[in-house]
Amino acid sequence: MENEFEFIKNKLKPLTFSKKEARGLSDDCALFENIKDLVVSVDSSIEGVHVPEGTDIAVQARRAVLRSISDLATFGSSPICAFIAMSLPSSFEQQDFDKVADGLKKAFLEYDIFLAGGDITTHNGLPIFSVTVFGDNANKELGRNKSKPGDLIVVSGPIGDSFLGLELLNKNLKSSSLEDKNLIKKFLIPEPKIELGKNIKSFATSIIDISDGVLSELNHLCKNSGVGSEVYIRDIPFSSYAKKYITSNLYNYKDLLCGGDDYELLYTIDPKDKKLIDENSFIIGKINSKNKISIYLEDGNIIDINDGILGYKHF
Amino acid sequence: MENEFEFIKNKLKPLTFSKKEARGLSDDCALFENIKDLVVSVDSSIEGVHVPEGTDIAVQARRAVLRSISDLATFGSSPICAFIAMSLPSSFEQQDFDKVADGLKKAFLEYDIFLAGGDITTHNGLPIFSVTVFGDNANKELGRNKSKPGDLIVVSGPIGDSFLGLELLNKNLKSSSLEDKNLIKKFLIPEPKIELGKNIKSFATSIIDISDGVLSELNHLCKNSGVGSEVYIRDIPFSSYAKKYITSNLYNYKDLLCGGDDYELLYTIDPKDKKLIDENSFIIGKINSKNKISIYLEDGNIIDINDGILGYKHF
Repeated sequence: MENEFEFIKNKLKPLTFSKKEARGLSDDCALFENIKDLVVSVDSSIEGVHVPEGTDIAVQARRAVLRSISDLATFGSSPICAFIAMSLPSSFEQQDFDKVADGLKKAFLEYDIFLAGGDITTHNGLPIFSVTVFGDNANKELGRNKSKPGDLIVVSGPIGDSFLGLELLNKNLKSSSLEDKNLIKKFLIPEPKIELGKNIKSFATSIIDISDGVLSELNHLCKNSGVGSEVYIRDIPFSSYAKKYITSNLYNYKDLLCGGDDYELLYTIDPKDKKLIDENSFIIGKINSKNKISIYLEDGNIIDINDGILGYKHF
Repeated sequence: MENEFEFIKNKLKPLTFSKKEARGLSDDCALFENIKDLVVSVDSSIEGVHVPEGTDIAVQARRAVLRSISDLATFGSSPICAFIAMSLPSSFEQQDFDKVADGLKKAFLEYDIFLAGGDITTHNGLPIFSVTVFGDNANKELGRNKSKPGDLIVVSGPIGDSFLGLELLNKNLKSSSLEDKNLIKKFLIPEPKIELGKNIKSFATSIIDISDGVLSELNHLCKNSGVGSEVYIRDIPFSSYAKKYITSNLYNYKDLLCGGDDYELLYTIDPKDKKLIDENSFIIGKINSKNKISIYLEDGNIIDINDGILGYKHF
């Protein structure tokens, strides 16, 4: 079995793709001459917390990177590189370490980024990946605090599929249906909306990525902007898979709106820019000057949501 | 008890010291317009691996930051800010979270840096801090690969005190002697040599910080530079505390040279620059063109050390 230094040299160093900033992973540091409008995000992924226990370790590594990249999309930035701090089980064998490198490589190739540094420790616990990602050319005028009354609220794709995928994994349902496999894939291999972020950064008034549930993120956006909002259930894009689960009463709208891990973008735009949104984006409501989020159900009822009862709580 | 968002707002946001780059910790991202010669390092600190189980959580948090900063000294850089990814036990109470913030604050004030971001998760495991630190004005010509035969090898302060402090902690010896307390403090509260790094960056040929034992780090430096070295035990600065333990035969030179966590700088200089080293630094040997490290003992014997048998192994 390779020791730490051999693993770094044989399996991780190739992931620097010879970028000089990574210095061959030999200096405990990465050096950058100049990055224009650098954006940085840090996210941890813990087996048993962010992914179910027993999730394939290559998938855990890949997903940890993809999740972190998603934050960069909110500033219309392109990812450049990642630093990975790994705390891995003492029981790991060579093949487990190799799978970690394979999973990282997949994410790096998908988003054309390189490994810039990090560290590896083994411990008596489950795998933890703490990922620091860099992006450049961020639009620093963006953020979550510039939505204004009258703005339209837009989501970049289906809501809740990832939540359903996680439910299927947690319940260990051995479904062989293609639909369920797609839901599980949506959870395990998120697709951060980097290109979309770059396309909308010139006109979106606020952007947030949906990691903790669309209502929770909308709540952040409203609180930070000092506004309220109204959301129309009939306008929310649910996939045909998700609709099937809603129709069967196994899950309801609230589950899908509060479930996390969509990694779609939620953003607001001035109505005059309505024609600029792409074909996969859906207008789901609008910003108002009230102090709450009102959800208009399909049966005509309205649910008012105030602060603090939404979404995923980390502790 | 505060929830995650309250803890961030009440205890962590003040640690941004209102620096605009941190965006009030409200955006999941930090933004930097331009950092000249940015240097980045990532280090994890795991209870039970890097510090003994039961170590005060405020000390763990503070030490995690200090260790990471030490890497920046090797490029003569000044630390700017830190990102902290914390995985904390689910059993943590308000006072534990508060202690984490207190420990971070101490390190931040000591080195005049700010909290730029990170994340918090609770899990069924011991505390883990993964710290990403930024420094600016790095001398990118530096590193570990420019030592040349004839260069003198210098250490910035006593070797082995920290190892002895860890031994005292691990053996749970309830010594009340001031000397032992100092050894323990040396381990728990490292003092990264930032100022020294800035002073020597113009003339040192290679610099490495001693995290894994002076012989292990010298081995890295020699391997990366393609050189060998000779080290004289009589010239290595051992503190009076350390000498006492050696004299009593409780520990020997090898323990102290291979024990980690000194966080002193090990650097090489051209002999013509000998007069430039400061009063706390000691010349302990010199670089040669051989393929090994030779250690000259006080009794006249020589131990040759080849690759791979030294220092702390992470796995």
